[in-house]
Amino acid sequence: MQQEARAEERREQQEERRAKQERDHEFRLMSMLTRVLSSSRGTEDQSASTSRETFPVPSTSQTLLSCLLPNSAKTVPSMLWGDQTAQYSPYLSRRGNSMRLHQGILQEGYNQYHANKHDENSNPHVSLPRSCTLMRPDMLHIEPAFLQYPDWKGHSVLQEEVAKFLSDYCRSPKPLKPENVVVMNGCGAVFSALAATLCDSEDAILIPSPFYGVITEDVGLYSTVKLHHVPLYSQPTGSDVRPFQLTVEKLENSLKEAKKEGLNIKALILLNPHNPLGDVYSSEELISFLQFAKMHKLHVIVDEIYMLSVFNETDTFCSVLSLDGLPDPQRTHVMWGVSKEFAMAGIRLGMVYSENGDLVQALDQLGYFHGVPGPTQYQMVQLLRDRDWLNSEFLPENRHRLREAHSFMIEELKKLDIPFLHRSAGFFIWADLSKYLKEKTFAEELSLWRCFLKHKVLLSCGQAFSCVSPGWFRIIFTDRLHKLQLGLSITLIHISVPVFL
Amino acid sequence: MQQEARAEERREQQEERRAKQERDHEFRLMSMLTRVLSSSRGTEDQSASTSRETFPVPSTSQTLLSCLLPNSAKTVPSMLWGDQTAQYSPYLSRRGNSMRLHQGILQEGYNQYHANKHDENSNPHVSLPRSCTLMRPDMLHIEPAFLQYPDWKGHSVLQEEVAKFLSDYCRSPKPLKPENVVVMNGCGAVFSALAATLCDSEDAILIPSPFYGVITEDVGLYSTVKLHHVPLYSQPTGSDVRPFQLTVEKLENSLKEAKKEGLNIKALILLNPHNPLGDVYSSEELISFLQFAKMHKLHVIVDEIYMLSVFNETDTFCSVLSLDGLPDPQRTHVMWGVSKEFAMAGIRLGMVYSENGDLVQALDQLGYFHGVPGPTQYQMVQLLRDRDWLNSEFLPENRHRLREAHSFMIEELKKLDIPFLHRSAGFFIWADLSKYLKEKTFAEELSLWRCFLKHKVLLSCGQAFSCVSPGWFRIIFTDRLHKLQLGLSITLIHISVPVFL
Repeated sequence: MQQEARAEERREQQEERRAKQERDHEFRLMSMLTRVLSSSRGTEDQSASTSRETFPVPSTSQTLLSCLLPNSAKTVPSMLWGDQTAQYSPYLSRRGNSMRLHQGILQEGYNQYHANKHDENSNPHVSLPRSCTLMRPDMLHIEPAFLQYPDWKGHSVLQEEVAKFLSDYCRSPKPLKPENVVVMNGCGAVFSALAATLCDSEDAILIPSPFYGVITEDVGLYSTVKLHHVPLYSQPTGSDVRPFQLTVEKLENSLKEAKKEGLNIKALILLNPHNPLGDVYSSEELISFLQFAKMHKLHVIVDEIYMLSVFNETDTFCSVLSLDGLPDPQRTHVMWGVSKEFAMAGIRLGMVYSENGDLVQALDQLGYFHGVPGPTQYQMVQLLRDRDWLNSEFLPENRHRLREAHSFMIEELKKLDIPFLHRSAGFFIWADLSKYLKEKTFAEELSLWRCFLKHKVLLSCGQAFSCVSPGWFRIIFTDRLHKLQLGLSITLIHISVPVFL
Repeated sequence: MQQEARAEERREQQEERRAKQERDHEFRLMSMLTRVLSSSRGTEDQSASTSRETFPVPSTSQTLLSCLLPNSAKTVPSMLWGDQTAQYSPYLSRRGNSMRLHQGILQEGYNQYHANKHDENSNPHVSLPRSCTLMRPDMLHIEPAFLQYPDWKGHSVLQEEVAKFLSDYCRSPKPLKPENVVVMNGCGAVFSALAATLCDSEDAILIPSPFYGVITEDVGLYSTVKLHHVPLYSQPTGSDVRPFQLTVEKLENSLKEAKKEGLNIKALILLNPHNPLGDVYSSEELISFLQFAKMHKLHVIVDEIYMLSVFNETDTFCSVLSLDGLPDPQRTHVMWGVSKEFAMAGIRLGMVYSENGDLVQALDQLGYFHGVPGPTQYQMVQLLRDRDWLNSEFLPENRHRLREAHSFMIEELKKLDIPFLHRSAGFFIWADLSKYLKEKTFAEELSLWRCFLKHKVLLSCGQAFSCVSPGWFRIIFTDRLHKLQLGLSITLIHISVPVFL
């Protein structure tokens, strides 16, 4: 034990030294960049805007930035996006070929970013070091049952722990039932399996756009189910009180339109907290959406994967599972996973809670393709069970770091007069960079995105989320402050002084 | 460390005590059963048959057993198999309903067996206690990269280790390339992804029958690809030298027949070593099958999941990867996984090796649905890397135990004059129990299977493997000897003295 403690101490010291070297190096880079930047931009330290929705009036400085940008965008050479045509493989089936050649923008960005990342040692999330839990000795435990074929819905000990966990953190009025929990290897797998079991391949699912774009592949690749978008706009209309607001009226209109197109809509997907908007629905909103769905006999898949990442105590997250009496419990299915909030996407653990026994039974059949290793299930039990650590250490510290990084980023956006949605949930800010586009087109948006990516900054562009108006970007702020500063300065220098590229 | 060692010692002692109690209990049960059995059967200790293929002449004792059996079968009440009609769920899609209601015989047997198992503490495989490797302290290691989205083909460190491992154990003439390795969560997932990428939903795959029946679901559930069987018969015909022999002629005939039926055959699946036959193909046979496939531009998926379980040194396993110059390397894809040989089906790790870059790229796209946790990938690296332990401890001891259990079982089968295939690979013996069927029909075969299952003995019947002649059963022998004895005596008593049921 002492040996282990000493080794741990050495590792910590080493990490500290490495972090310091990294900071020093970045500080030198930053100083260099700041000097270049300030010499070209003059003294632009604007006072921060204080409006909550922050759609600021254009300032003079911005003219310089936006008129310089198109040149910068033009310097970007043709990239992967344009190279994917007509490479039909004679060895693969039609769908094999389409799977192979398919690449969403989010995926392309992620791949390119990671293929040539600024710093391979970086820790891209704000969460506490994950090793503090997963490397505990009590995580190394193997029972014979863990190594045999499991119940494909998950080992009962994990189903029980998940039910307890969701009961507590979703504030369920009565304890949730373990047998309604299905565990799979990630929420992508859960979406795929839900699409396959609730829809036939000619059916479609309603989803308000913008939305986390990977869901298109999740329901489409294996299950060949299509999404029908409910477009939300940046400019509030009618009774809207905020940009990109979802209302029952918009749902009704889209459903009518889909029916006119001959589509058979079987379900509605809601993201709450919303990715990329950061919106958190009130209980009244939630109930109205669920009642809309009930009226049209639509299933509702509610993805609550960011439920623990509401970082401002004034905002309250309302889980569907907290509602007292669901309008249509047999058609309401709630998803959660550990990828986001515990910063462990590589652990591959997603789950769905549904009172519909038929659905649970059908998912069980597909579980064979989406199984989670027994020892991993055990580790997740230990993690979810450790309420002392969760409540007194992990969650408060995680929220604190989210708040801190978010504050930093919104202050920077205000200084730059970049409009954005001021929300308090998730890892991202939805910001309007359209003023940097030469023309308000999706082609220009893609050029800007490529420019950032070329310089190792990954900001996902709106079209990756099927946003209807060009120029919106999702800015992930869950990184260390000095990294955010570096990223920002790189971004700034490239949208403002292309001559230095 | 000392504390840990003491705890380990305590655990071992406790396990030993429990095992002893278990043995004593089973001994009492056995004595009881043996008394009953000997009083009803008289003295039937026959001398063992010595023929290798063992198709023995019927003995008198057998008449008693077979004439009594049908009564026993009749006493079995209707079971799950008959209860699955017309429970169409209004909540699910057509395919969701068919997925939900679908249950292969192997799955039904497994579920029923485990729902009411003779002894929950049993360790159903012969392999060394798995914990001896997976519970080593060096298995508990987390790097930040393990917790982030991985390369969906597998972490490069695992791809490298798998390539080295397969190069060595498959006796590849040159080192295999890590970039040709795709790792997924189990071989079921690999089959599903291969079917989706090589075939469109109207295509079909050739597979010699009998075969491991779950492959039907593997390629069918998500990917809606059908299997076209190449029927093999128990009676050798033409130039056959053994029962159920696969020949190029049979492949050619089935392919012609499939074309006549309008089927578009895209691939051939080979199981080597074969499940359930235990056959191991010679290099000449393998090459002839691969050349047949090349001539017809068929992909060949070779499942070598039992490659390390050839337990008789006189038999040599010949991996496709050992061949010097594959006839059609772009259409030859080899599968392996840890579920069987390391007795860890619950770890969910399967893989495919293919030189076809297009295929690897397409599989990468589906990898998102079949991801393996980073820490599990690391554990598998450690396991595969430990050649000293593998070569000097695990593999010899595993082969020894397989040999011992196999010898016991074939001696028992000989005593009972039950014909069987005498092979030296895999965990099972393919045996002909048709003499216990009232009529040689699949309905009677199913009755016999239900009778065994009702009494907590799981022998999988031939129709679960799409065998063309009724009465064949797959007997898994990889259990402790005293368990096998108990299972045998239960089986015997129920096929011989139904009055005691």
